[in-house]
Amino acid sequence: MEKFAIILSGSGVYDGSEIHETTMTMLAIKRQGADYDIFAPDIDQHHVINHYTGEMTDDKRNVLVESARIARGDIKPLSRFEASVYDAIVMPGGFGAAKNLSSFAFHGTSCTVETDTENAIKSMHEQGKPIGALCISPVVVAAVLEKGKYTIGQDKESSEAIAGFGGEHVQTTHGEVIIDKENNIFTTPCYMLDANILHIAKGAENIIKAISDQLGNN
Amino acid sequence: MEKFAIILSGSGVYDGSEIHETTMTMLAIKRQGADYDIFAPDIDQHHVINHYTGEMTDDKRNVLVESARIARGDIKPLSRFEASVYDAIVMPGGFGAAKNLSSFAFHGTSCTVETDTENAIKSMHEQGKPIGALCISPVVVAAVLEKGKYTIGQDKESSEAIAGFGGEHVQTTHGEVIIDKENNIFTTPCYMLDANILHIAKGAENIIKAISDQLGNN
Repeated sequence: MEKFAIILSGSGVYDGSEIHETTMTMLAIKRQGADYDIFAPDIDQHHVINHYTGEMTDDKRNVLVESARIARGDIKPLSRFEASVYDAIVMPGGFGAAKNLSSFAFHGTSCTVETDTENAIKSMHEQGKPIGALCISPVVVAAVLEKGKYTIGQDKESSEAIAGFGGEHVQTTHGEVIIDKENNIFTTPCYMLDANILHIAKGAENIIKAISDQLGNN
Repeated sequence: MEKFAIILSGSGVYDGSEIHETTMTMLAIKRQGADYDIFAPDIDQHHVINHYTGEMTDDKRNVLVESARIARGDIKPLSRFEASVYDAIVMPGGFGAAKNLSSFAFHGTSCTVETDTENAIKSMHEQGKPIGALCISPVVVAAVLEKGKYTIGQDKESSEAIAGFGGEHVQTTHGEVIIDKENNIFTTPCYMLDANILHIAKGAENIIKAISDQLGNN
């Protein structure tokens, strides 16, 4: 059975992992007859956003602890991730990817990537294994690998950042998946477009199916 | 277009709404060609559970604010709910239903139900409109209506509580929906059973389809 690692960045679109993208990714993996483990870095969130008002709060929260809400407690610190154990890795979107897994939201192409996240992406890439990224997460992969073909949909600033990291950006619409065969990178735009939950389900299904097909061909 | 109201109790299985059940309910409603608004009471959570360790913390969080994480900010205080606007109401599960929307987790059949939640259930029932409840949420509906046929799966304690409230409990397994035609109540067990996300998707799909079929027959 194929085994995916899902990397989370908190729980909630504005300061963590986007919840619909994460849940639909989990469902899509199970529907492919595959399984997953969930990981998140054991670090403080960059900040906490009140998702009702959109305002920043004084709260302190931990990325692993909040990610555990989506995982129902079944989650491991990303420091324990071993590429040899997994067939593929996938990162749902949400601002957590750009605020906790990297500093992209604040520093653009001058951003840094969180250490465990960088190690996970690099080690999977070195082993030639598929890396999937939804929504804004492709910028994190591009920041680490400094090459590859990606989509984040149609957003101009993020597209330019992909190029700034040394990658190539391809415009897409709902549910489309860009497959970089050479680098084994799979990306789909999800909520980087003006989308609803039907589009997210389709995007997650399509990217996981594309990765599974690739694994089946090996 | 049919319009559902989804009632949330936070974000995270141990102290709020169960995230998979909520997300799958949203998806199922859209897949029926219907739409939804999301509501939650503007009250403090009973407590905050660290979902990584399972331990209680000293944090204070608000049910409406945390529910907004699943709703991506698109949520209203339950005090503004009007039964006349909606065709059906549905409550996903999670301990939030038994800790925030009611005190069932602490007081069993002697529990109280949160005022806005009680008003929402009562007003929908008075207008003869469908009420759906997943997982543990049926106990909240039974506590308010003190009659009706429900399932919470196979858990002995909760089944007895349903009877204690004046309801009737029917044992079920994954994805099954109990339809109480007389009272227009729809229930399905989800994570009250030892389930995975495939079962939750099926349960949510089945209960929303059953409610939509009922609405189509009126």
